Amino acid sequence: MCRSETGQEMPARSGNKAKPPRRFAGVVVAMAGLPARGKTQVAHCLARRLNWNGESAKVMRVSVYRQKRLDMYASHELFRPDHATNVAIRSLAQKDAMRDCASWLAAGNSLAILDGTLVTHEQRAEVFDYFSGQLGYRVIFIECVCSDPASLEQNYQGILTYSADYKNMDKARAVEDLRLKVAHYAQAYEPMDENTWPRITVDTGNMDITAHKVSGHVETKILGYLGSVRIQPHTLYFSRHGESEYNVLGKIGGDAVLSARGERYAQALATHINGLHVPELRVLTSRLRRTIATARGVEAAQEHISELNELDAGVCEGLSYEEMQEQYPQEFAWRDQDKLRYRYPWGESYVDIMQRVEPVLADLQQATNMLVISHQAVLRCIIGFFMDKKPEELPYMEVPLHTIIKITSRGFNYELEFFKLPIECVNTTRVKPKNCSVNRTADDALLTVPAHFDIPDPWRNPASGPTLVQQH
Amino acid sequence: MCRSETGQEMPARSGNKAKPPRRFAGVVVAMAGLPARGKTQVAHCLARRLNWNGESAKVMRVSVYRQKRLDMYASHELFRPDHATNVAIRSLAQKDAMRDCASWLAAGNSLAILDGTLVTHEQRAEVFDYFSGQLGYRVIFIECVCSDPASLEQNYQGILTYSADYKNMDKARAVEDLRLKVAHYAQAYEPMDENTWPRITVDTGNMDITAHKVSGHVETKILGYLGSVRIQPHTLYFSRHGESEYNVLGKIGGDAVLSARGERYAQALATHINGLHVPELRVLTSRLRRTIATARGVEAAQEHISELNELDAGVCEGLSYEEMQEQYPQEFAWRDQDKLRYRYPWGESYVDIMQRVEPVLADLQQATNMLVISHQAVLRCIIGFFMDKKPEELPYMEVPLHTIIKITSRGFNYELEFFKLPIECVNTTRVKPKNCSVNRTADDALLTVPAHFDIPDPWRNPASGPTLVQQH
Repeated sequence: MCRSETGQEMPARSGNKAKPPRRFAGVVVAMAGLPARGKTQVAHCLARRLNWNGESAKVMRVSVYRQKRLDMYASHELFRPDHATNVAIRSLAQKDAMRDCASWLAAGNSLAILDGTLVTHEQRAEVFDYFSGQLGYRVIFIECVCSDPASLEQNYQGILTYSADYKNMDKARAVEDLRLKVAHYAQAYEPMDENTWPRITVDTGNMDITAHKVSGHVETKILGYLGSVRIQPHTLYFSRHGESEYNVLGKIGGDAVLSARGERYAQALATHINGLHVPELRVLTSRLRRTIATARGVEAAQEHISELNELDAGVCEGLSYEEMQEQYPQEFAWRDQDKLRYRYPWGESYVDIMQRVEPVLADLQQATNMLVISHQAVLRCIIGFFMDKKPEELPYMEVPLHTIIKITSRGFNYELEFFKLPIECVNTTRVKPKNCSVNRTADDALLTVPAHFDIPDPWRNPASGPTLVQQH
Repeated sequence: MCRSETGQEMPARSGNKAKPPRRFAGVVVAMAGLPARGKTQVAHCLARRLNWNGESAKVMRVSVYRQKRLDMYASHELFRPDHATNVAIRSLAQKDAMRDCASWLAAGNSLAILDGTLVTHEQRAEVFDYFSGQLGYRVIFIECVCSDPASLEQNYQGILTYSADYKNMDKARAVEDLRLKVAHYAQAYEPMDENTWPRITVDTGNMDITAHKVSGHVETKILGYLGSVRIQPHTLYFSRHGESEYNVLGKIGGDAVLSARGERYAQALATHINGLHVPELRVLTSRLRRTIATARGVEAAQEHISELNELDAGVCEGLSYEEMQEQYPQEFAWRDQDKLRYRYPWGESYVDIMQRVEPVLADLQQATNMLVISHQAVLRCIIGFFMDKKPEELPYMEVPLHTIIKITSRGFNYELEFFKLPIECVNTTRVKPKNCSVNRTADDALLTVPAHFDIPDPWRNPASGPTLVQQH
């Protein structure tokens, strides 16, 4: 989002005069701290938020570069500060990562996160001089410390579970090896109390944050995002509202109540969730009737917030796709051409939703045991955030009705599970049609509209009742 | 932006059971710290950013409530902690401010900033218990300290210049009175080292920031915004590009070069700015040819950034208002109906610009001696930010061509000055027409289009040349 024109140049690698960092140049975030202080978690939490907000951020993890240089991890001996060959290997890996950071920024991206340990002043000075002095980028250090024994223990368990180094090692040996690895680093560690460089220190045990000399719009954004970082494992639950009367009729938007089948789903959802006995469960719904009704039976504190309301279809609220094609064929085609960015007249786009749900994302990053009951477009965005989906993928993600979706943290990634409850409902997913031209025929435009019941004429005449219309 | 449904209720004032704060409830920001630590500046900087980003924040300044209760300020004696009557008066003023904070939030607003001193633990406990315990809002303290004597001295000067208390007092007496006032507070001051409540401590001397127990999407946003707060006085310069060939022809958007008169303005601007000998001047322009050309002669480091590009008029780029009325009469009317929110098909709205310029605003809040050369809509937003304009006012602000605009901080407000350079140019401001209906006539729609040169037929035939067309 924030790239200076000169940011596109391939920077010279060495020997040239120190450049002052530019105000809108790329930014290097350099992680520092002992192993098991949550650096990688913090780096990925930050990258996720930054990428969601228009930056192009990538984490370069030094240990991955080291694993590329060394086919197999043998033992903690690799990390002894008094072993010249091993020190050299790790230093090369660090340089590999730094070079990739520089290439990433030179390609016009806005942010590179160097995820290493940088335990000595000398290592940090090398990083700062290379990126700031030589290449003219802005540099900020994020030091992770941890004062809480329970959090430390949890971090150790995380490494033992997810690190490639310990994948094939006997558990007891791995525990001892990790302990010795950390001890080697601790021997060399110089706490980051220099006041030379911009720096944020995060205590990942209690999430206390100290910022020194932090300035610049990207850096201050990072400072804010750090407040929402969570190191502890967490679990989140999601569901769309039960089938609504508008879903049945194939209409979009509105504030319809649940259909009879939607009501049955609400009961089944409550039975299922209440049966899980989730500790300190909290429920968030939108402020529309169909999500509030769906949550009604769940035994937990509930908040109804407008951030979770469905995408506002503006002039098309309450229309079926058939009616939209009839009344606004150009808008219908434009939407198919770019569903992510297309905004309904007087309504919203997916990009608008991405911004609107940001406060919810910030809270969900920190929360656990939260059940979010919302709508198709909004849940596509929220779930897509945790699954690191590209914005372009969001409008076509599968978020079916009558399904509980569970997201569980696995290291810095998330696992996604679907639990379909056995209550029938219409399908509301319309896949992108082949022909998105404004000149297409109505048949071409309506080819992928899912089956729904038709509105009888006169509207809701109880004598005739709705009839199922299968498109093609 | 983030109001829970229950946030609308009028909270009970006392005697009821303590409520746990809700996740999406209103937030109270309580300032704490000795006088002259920059609390009011920090409070207003925060409110400005928060309001720009969809929150509804208001600063309730305890000293203003005290001034309402006491007709005239006599002396520092008012602040003696051992004077029972005076302590009672100040305590009442504090309660007045707290009540107004509660009413503000009860009316559905999202954020109240209580700008007092809260120098004792007991005072902070009272604030926390009232807002969080009794009313169920979220509370965060921002403590301002200052370790730098030069900054302190500057803050004292600010108070002596801008405080209503010292308006009519002899300068030497005021200096001594302020010294004694601070001494009274210092006597009672208990540093905020309790780890009971969410708190951010800001050293306004070096802008070091410490955050403790900060969570929640509003609170973490505040943490980030604090990184961009500036306490020191500052000055910013703005200019639109010189008149462009499109301006002359009454066309919107595009990437036209300067007209001959625009080139003359660029020279005059450079002469004027270079003559000011602004120390460490920096220049920011958009990435369009007309701003880069306008900045060319200014002797200072320059960056060209896309955040400063003009509002993207999408399908209407390069059209004149007459052509827009002819080709897209409905869009033209919609734009007049709500110029703030209207987005051109495949283009942008003013609201989009407000978001796009946020990184620039964050930087300008911290910067001084910066010259920004950009475009009408973008500068309306940027200047409107510093002048605390309501979003609805932005699209109709006067930002004329060939004019240098200077903004200078005056306490927590800004002073705006226009310097019109004597080089002729067209007027590009189209005021809102009376008739904004989609059914209006072309004459009604074009009534307020400013005079411009018409495009000769054939286009740019040097023999005929453009002819001035005065609408009505």
